[in-house]
Amino acid sequence: MAKPKNILFIMFDQLRWDYLSCYGHPHLQTPHIDKLASKGVRFDRAYIQSPLCGPSRMSTYTGRYVHSHGASWNNVPLKVGERTMGDYLRDLGMGCWLVGKTHMMADAEGMARLGLEPDSVIGARVSECGFDVFERDDGMRPEGPDGFYDDRGALKYNEYLHSRGYEGNNPWHDYANSANDGAGNVLSGWFLENSDKPANIIEYDSETPYLTRRGMAFIDAQGDAPWCCHLSYIKPHWPYIVPAPYHAMYGPEHFLPVVRSEEERATDHPVFGGMMKAPVGQAFSQNHVREKALRVYMGLIKQCDDQMGVLFDWLEQTGRMEDTMIVVTSDHGDYLGDHWLGEKTFCHDTSVKVPMIVYDPSAEADPMRGTVSNALVQLIDLAPTFVEVAGGDASRLDHVLEGKSLFPLLRGQGQSRDHAFCEYDFSMTPLSKKLDLDTAESRLFMVTDGRFKLIEFGGGIRPMLFDMREDPDELVDLGQSEDHAEVIVRLSDVLGTWAKRPAQRTTISNKTLVQTRSNRSTKGVILGAVKEADVDADLVAKYTGRMAPPVQET
Amino acid sequence: MAKPKNILFIMFDQLRWDYLSCYGHPHLQTPHIDKLASKGVRFDRAYIQSPLCGPSRMSTYTGRYVHSHGASWNNVPLKVGERTMGDYLRDLGMGCWLVGKTHMMADAEGMARLGLEPDSVIGARVSECGFDVFERDDGMRPEGPDGFYDDRGALKYNEYLHSRGYEGNNPWHDYANSANDGAGNVLSGWFLENSDKPANIIEYDSETPYLTRRGMAFIDAQGDAPWCCHLSYIKPHWPYIVPAPYHAMYGPEHFLPVVRSEEERATDHPVFGGMMKAPVGQAFSQNHVREKALRVYMGLIKQCDDQMGVLFDWLEQTGRMEDTMIVVTSDHGDYLGDHWLGEKTFCHDTSVKVPMIVYDPSAEADPMRGTVSNALVQLIDLAPTFVEVAGGDASRLDHVLEGKSLFPLLRGQGQSRDHAFCEYDFSMTPLSKKLDLDTAESRLFMVTDGRFKLIEFGGGIRPMLFDMREDPDELVDLGQSEDHAEVIVRLSDVLGTWAKRPAQRTTISNKTLVQTRSNRSTKGVILGAVKEADVDADLVAKYTGRMAPPVQET
Repeated sequence: MAKPKNILFIMFDQLRWDYLSCYGHPHLQTPHIDKLASKGVRFDRAYIQSPLCGPSRMSTYTGRYVHSHGASWNNVPLKVGERTMGDYLRDLGMGCWLVGKTHMMADAEGMARLGLEPDSVIGARVSECGFDVFERDDGMRPEGPDGFYDDRGALKYNEYLHSRGYEGNNPWHDYANSANDGAGNVLSGWFLENSDKPANIIEYDSETPYLTRRGMAFIDAQGDAPWCCHLSYIKPHWPYIVPAPYHAMYGPEHFLPVVRSEEERATDHPVFGGMMKAPVGQAFSQNHVREKALRVYMGLIKQCDDQMGVLFDWLEQTGRMEDTMIVVTSDHGDYLGDHWLGEKTFCHDTSVKVPMIVYDPSAEADPMRGTVSNALVQLIDLAPTFVEVAGGDASRLDHVLEGKSLFPLLRGQGQSRDHAFCEYDFSMTPLSKKLDLDTAESRLFMVTDGRFKLIEFGGGIRPMLFDMREDPDELVDLGQSEDHAEVIVRLSDVLGTWAKRPAQRTTISNKTLVQTRSNRSTKGVILGAVKEADVDADLVAKYTGRMAPPVQET
Repeated sequence: MAKPKNILFIMFDQLRWDYLSCYGHPHLQTPHIDKLASKGVRFDRAYIQSPLCGPSRMSTYTGRYVHSHGASWNNVPLKVGERTMGDYLRDLGMGCWLVGKTHMMADAEGMARLGLEPDSVIGARVSECGFDVFERDDGMRPEGPDGFYDDRGALKYNEYLHSRGYEGNNPWHDYANSANDGAGNVLSGWFLENSDKPANIIEYDSETPYLTRRGMAFIDAQGDAPWCCHLSYIKPHWPYIVPAPYHAMYGPEHFLPVVRSEEERATDHPVFGGMMKAPVGQAFSQNHVREKALRVYMGLIKQCDDQMGVLFDWLEQTGRMEDTMIVVTSDHGDYLGDHWLGEKTFCHDTSVKVPMIVYDPSAEADPMRGTVSNALVQLIDLAPTFVEVAGGDASRLDHVLEGKSLFPLLRGQGQSRDHAFCEYDFSMTPLSKKLDLDTAESRLFMVTDGRFKLIEFGGGIRPMLFDMREDPDELVDLGQSEDHAEVIVRLSDVLGTWAKRPAQRTTISNKTLVQTRSNRSTKGVILGAVKEADVDADLVAKYTGRMAPPVQET
């Protein structure tokens, strides 16, 4: 089966599945992404593994559930020893490079324990989630009284801005993520009231076009060897601000109606209700806040799509469209006021379902071009897919990689998986304190079979259930419905079996385990044999016919 | 609280909990171990984490469940990155040394991936399960047509035997583990018909006394610095053969009656029944096989106890009895025909409950001397206990260590844990092939609350349940009892919660997680704020009052 030579793995950040015209948004036209969808397969039910940047990405990069790799929240280090797509692809002779964001926090303690120097080749890769780094840019340079959120965030981008004449110690904030009152006063993009003003930056210099050019610079520098480029954008993630002309393209007439109900707001569920009552939920439940943010959110997406146009045109011109698999996806969605929530960190499709488009230039993919797959897929399916692009056999890694290659689906031959899983660990958040949950209890697990979606909680908190066929907006929580008791037990059992999976049995392949079942013991361990004749002669040849004089006590 | 200075961690291999006189054996007198029990706390319900040498030990050494560390069977490597008691104790300034067996298989692939050289200090420790090695002796040098079971097994012991005049390429087999027909013909200890003959070796030179002397040599060489010595015997593990006079001390009049029933034999349970039908079960279900093995098994234990006498006397003389915690335990039991089974690898107490005696020389332990604790404890509780001996705070490691320090129980203040857990992975065995189970399904999980014991299986196989109060011999499988449906659901839920535990969130402590809940965001990330006044002024100082001239497109 022919495979593409290279991989361009494009990830947006906080891009909702339904804010692209190919996914049905009636007013936000994204022709460039749509065009890629028309040439590839658009997955309609792609689930992330955790509704937060860090854990979601660590799952995507490792091909493993959060419950398996343990990097449960932003800036919880990914432990030394967890392999990522970078490790697998390099083993197969494909370079694997980062241009943009990973949200990776290195396991400095684990590295020190094993004597790994951060500036060694191996240490650098372990620090960078297995990628070689063309440019790391987590896209964020927030600064508070205790310093920068991330010492390295947007460093190169700030250098770029300085070189372009932007001033100050943090032009990322003062220009790229702020507006200007015309008199030079910075109107920070952190305050939502400023969202509808244009960012104080030439559009060309803003983050999304900058990163597009960095991606093209990377690809342009590649020779004949195959490569995977993780081109990883920060946008349309907050701060919610965008340069002209994108700041003024959208208004209320373009917004999707808010999805929420008074019944939801009255929920007795401590976690769902607690999230509504948190500041972010409270903010985005206000229409004027939602509407300010939506204008910009849509503008940011429009800018992203325009940049995809720039990128795809360039790939056409350079011939890369013919030998490169292109994936466009996101790390999670954005509530934007739906269900009385903001941000992500809960399990409605708004948050946990993402766009995923896979374009495969191979002739074998021709029959599937422009099709929509409604198979349940997970973001952890990308790592094994990429392994297969690089010429590997992902089934030989299925003791580590918990996703499944998408190739059967890409070739129209695959079956949907039975279930998709997602988790969220809120043990570091104020909500866990408010609910007096310990650090093991402050976690939730989601499973869906495509129709129903069960969310289980720790600490004796009751489950939630949605019937996504009868209630596609997920407004009716059936977690206490007696009519659905059997569904809840069934999906809970699925979660139980999932939780018991041998995710840590990573030092021996399933193929080896199966082979061993049929092996005779040929290395001398003989169990349950009464006499020589009970055992094949060759197996005990070293134990028979031997001479050893009787020993005398001296 | 005063703590002992050193730790002598003695582990026997395959020692049943009920084959010591302090645990009630009426005919096998073990006065030396009993004496230790009279000076320490004898735990009556100590559970291992897997009924097989390798995974059980990897759990004990790491302080983590098999489901957490993944070394699921003998010779499945313990992955790079898993820490063990050696790592924790050294961090606290206590040396941690091995004298004897671990069954550790190094993760050569993982080490190569991280550039760890096996002969570097760090690499050697990673290879040896975190121990520094005084003498590694897994006690086994079986040899078959495809070579030795373990290239390194008993190498030093064979050297020792050579130095003592024993001949041939494998005196471990020909002398220590074989008898002699008087004419120099080796009668291999691998054949059970030879079990009741004396091993062809001077008792002084046999494995148990040899290893005792190696342990004393280690301790003797220690200076003032605190140490932990893992003195880890292979016996009473097979081959079932023992030198004179121990070979002839016990006969049928000393045997415990076999524990089995015809109802058991007629079980419809595919895993339990399948194990009965396997060659080892078939062999040990024959009385004459059982009786040959029992003679020797008891003789081996008697020899072990006599060696404990030698060791403890020497510790008294050298003053080490006053500053050293001593633990005596085992890695699992031995069915010896009970329940129609041989070996271990299933979940009756015969197999999964082990003797555990903890002697603490501290004055604070005085009130508890000679007491019996019937608290549920697990072998993974030893690692955190040792951390506390070394002066650490095990609760600060509870994001990695899944056991709990025994100190509260040792001081008469602790509560029993609610549940103990055990697992067995038989995916490499012929039974999994016979039952056509895949490598995820070929696993079983046991949970007990002290009264009931539930065993769950993969592949849709029904659970088993024992009521250990009403049926202490575990002869009646209640897995299909409608009267016990609620118990089964309750314990199954406990297993489900256990399986979801955050065992891999090892790069951040629970204390840090809890602290973070209360932290304000002081590094500049501002969510849900509409205007400046919505946020504490200090948090947004970097975003306000800034000047940046309006940008002009050039």
